Amino acid sequence: MTTPSGIDGTSREVRIIGTGLIGTSIGLALRRTGLDPVLQDQSVTAMTLARDLGAGRLGPRLGHDEGSDGGAHPTPDVVVVATPPDITPSVVADALARWPEATVTDVASVKGVILDDLRRMGAPLARYVGSHPMAGRERSGAIAARPDLFEGRAWVVCPDDDADAGRVDVVERIARACGSVVTRLTPGEHDAAVAAVSHVPQVAASLVAARLEALSEQAVGLSGQGVRDVTRVAASDPGLWTQILSGNAASVRAVLTVLRDELDGVIGALHALEQGIDEDAPGARAVIARAIAGGNAGHARIPGKHGAAPTSYGVVSVVVGDRPGELARLLADIGEAEVNLEDLRLDHGLGLPFGVAEVSVLPASVSPLEEALLARGWQLHG
Amino acid sequence: MTTPSGIDGTSREVRIIGTGLIGTSIGLALRRTGLDPVLQDQSVTAMTLARDLGAGRLGPRLGHDEGSDGGAHPTPDVVVVATPPDITPSVVADALARWPEATVTDVASVKGVILDDLRRMGAPLARYVGSHPMAGRERSGAIAARPDLFEGRAWVVCPDDDADAGRVDVVERIARACGSVVTRLTPGEHDAAVAAVSHVPQVAASLVAARLEALSEQAVGLSGQGVRDVTRVAASDPGLWTQILSGNAASVRAVLTVLRDELDGVIGALHALEQGIDEDAPGARAVIARAIAGGNAGHARIPGKHGAAPTSYGVVSVVVGDRPGELARLLADIGEAEVNLEDLRLDHGLGLPFGVAEVSVLPASVSPLEEALLARGWQLHG
Repeated sequence: MTTPSGIDGTSREVRIIGTGLIGTSIGLALRRTGLDPVLQDQSVTAMTLARDLGAGRLGPRLGHDEGSDGGAHPTPDVVVVATPPDITPSVVADALARWPEATVTDVASVKGVILDDLRRMGAPLARYVGSHPMAGRERSGAIAARPDLFEGRAWVVCPDDDADAGRVDVVERIARACGSVVTRLTPGEHDAAVAAVSHVPQVAASLVAARLEALSEQAVGLSGQGVRDVTRVAASDPGLWTQILSGNAASVRAVLTVLRDELDGVIGALHALEQGIDEDAPGARAVIARAIAGGNAGHARIPGKHGAAPTSYGVVSVVVGDRPGELARLLADIGEAEVNLEDLRLDHGLGLPFGVAEVSVLPASVSPLEEALLARGWQLHG
Repeated sequence: MTTPSGIDGTSREVRIIGTGLIGTSIGLALRRTGLDPVLQDQSVTAMTLARDLGAGRLGPRLGHDEGSDGGAHPTPDVVVVATPPDITPSVVADALARWPEATVTDVASVKGVILDDLRRMGAPLARYVGSHPMAGRERSGAIAARPDLFEGRAWVVCPDDDADAGRVDVVERIARACGSVVTRLTPGEHDAAVAAVSHVPQVAASLVAARLEALSEQAVGLSGQGVRDVTRVAASDPGLWTQILSGNAASVRAVLTVLRDELDGVIGALHALEQGIDEDAPGARAVIARAIAGGNAGHARIPGKHGAAPTSYGVVSVVVGDRPGELARLLADIGEAEVNLEDLRLDHGLGLPFGVAEVSVLPASVSPLEEALLARGWQLHG
């Protein structure tokens, strides 16, 4: 046994361009494997901070020639471009031109537009393999970086048809070295997927939440867990999301257009029901029922815990006092009942000093758990 | 001190018509106050079950004359109609006609349509006060009833202008006796409020979830916490929701129409951005940014824990092993750090035997909690 070093047992020279949250976190993650990336950024402050945090060695400032800082920097085998998306294509093209043997990847959250730009520039696409680690934080910048940012998260690797298989393999090893689970999709598939699982849910959540603005205090006070869940991501940053949605405009628009057509159908059906109060309007009810049933079918496709197939859990609802330690006591009692908790959600009553813990467990565990908790003095909630 | 009896210190005769989940739970809740409601339903089985569960005394089967069962039943002071919404107006009108002194309420989840029907029938509206307890369960029927179903939940009382103030007071006392927090809204305000905080979020969640159906296994595997939250309610029953949305068609359509117009704006902006890749299209970006910012503003109006004003919490993310007792140990450590947990959310990594607990605490508690958890050996997560 030798100490594992590098991403494939041999050491490789990695260059990280862009030392924000993602670039610095990649550096920190790769350092754990024995690699020592060279770091570059437009900002000397940012790259120095990333170096001080332990993400790698200083390279020349981005936009300056190799060696212009007086250093002699190794020629990279792999270049990871982690700059803001708007400058990513030109930085990738520069790297492909400057290092004719290097494999170049980027980590931008849209892939089709970047590939189109590179093709337009005539970049050598055999050595470019775009990718997208699906991890982030509310905070940005090197200071928020963590070596485990990618642990257990999907990292989508998006080779174009022109990419060399060996280069794709190198990029996948980088992703795995960071702790990610690799998913391979074409750039088009990637953009359509993130439109459906991330960008469109964001737009929908924002539009639903905006409807609450005009409500009276009492009316908005009726908000329950449902609207809280639907609108949780509506608290996201408008500047960031304008960039993300603009970058994936075509794919987002395609999904939103289908959604809008379905919505028009529902609006039409509701209108028909208003008109014909004493009629059956069976067609209208069928449109609404189909819309809800379509949601059932789509929801059932979301993978369950740990990426496993979706499972239906049973829910045991328990009244929990609003004191430190109450929830800990509940979970200790669940553990003593030898039931594994699959999920937990807290729901707070209106104006009352307690909440309800909704404990998800395997269906067969519901009755034993209810009995065990009642025996330990917990109050179950309807 | 005397034992409290009834809903206002005097005993009252309460009649509950409809012994499903809500009617039976009201009976169970009122029994705790010393009242002994008379129960009626179309189904003898359902009313007998409710009686056996302790919700009150048997009355005549619904649709049969008083005394036709051989019993002598007290004339009710208060009638609670908890039948399915489609027969609610006629049951309310019958009750108003049969008992000329009684106050009559109903618990249907829409209020405007029922009032319109009663007005059309020429019912004596001074004695009718519609209401809507905002509580429910996944399961239905008397067997799922609980005396604490309404505990800490909003119960909207919706008097029309014609309603006597004293009658409104009686209905509010019933709601409070069941443990609810009373909110008073006009029927129109109620229907607009539930459209915005419940019915429209359901439609949006279903339409977003339906877009996942066509995705490949790998693409849907990229689903993160955002889409899980947005689509959680999309698992709801199509039959039930077709009834709910149909019953509140006008109010739901009004909100959905505004949402559709906003959505059209976003779709148009995305289209403009696709067309002019090298243009600025600043108007288009502004439309998108405004849509997200509108969501921020609406989201900020949702009340926080215990109905208090919204608070921004700080989040501490902790890696938690997938073993019984791990989460209990974490919460015990949070308790020992003397930090009160405001909310907790579990996020599961893809294909990994651990999850991440996102612990919400007051902003000032973030740093002390992080230090305390690191000192106790917990790994924080990015």
